Amino acid sequence: MVKVVAKNFIKEDKVDEFIALAAKLVQETVQNDAGCIHYGLYQDLSNPQVLTIIEEWENREALNQHMAAKHFQEASARFKDFVENPGEINLYQKLA
Amino acid sequence: MVKVVAKNFIKEDKVDEFIALAAKLVQETVQNDAGCIHYGLYQDLSNPQVLTIIEEWENREALNQHMAAKHFQEASARFKDFVENPGEINLYQKLA
Repeated sequence: MVKVVAKNFIKEDKVDEFIALAAKLVQETVQNDAGCIHYGLYQDLSNPQVLTIIEEWENREALNQHMAAKHFQEASARFKDFVENPGEINLYQKLA
Repeated sequence: MVKVVAKNFIKEDKVDEFIALAAKLVQETVQNDAGCIHYGLYQDLSNPQVLTIIEEWENREALNQHMAAKHFQEASARFKDFVENPGEINLYQKLA
């Protein structure tokens, strides 16, 4: 299993547009991508510009295939215009 | 629902001790704390000093009660000695 936390810092005037696009990506991923255990969009309760995708994949290969998929490539190309600061992405193994 | 991502940067020589203590906290939390949907310990695949607890709670009150519990208070007091840099904690609502 691979857990992914992809934290994005979005420009204030782009938050709504980012949410719409990311929600579409969530739907397309859950419907189409093999090996997806969980894929969700989350908003920080104290800072609405922090928008994070938290994911769970059966293995690294499934994650790689998702990142190569057309819907992911198109969405991430558009995300670049919405970002205020560089994001953080962490890939994790579960220990406990 | 409240999702929590608590990211810790642990001193290299304290990683094993942190993992043992955090795994115990996971077990105590899952067994005892009302409103806990998920509580897990994760290690970054490219940097073993990044150790993150990812949580899901039924509501904010359940999270507050967990943070007031003896097992959480004792563990977090000890975690302070293991930390290399200040950690990050984010509380999230789910959007999609």
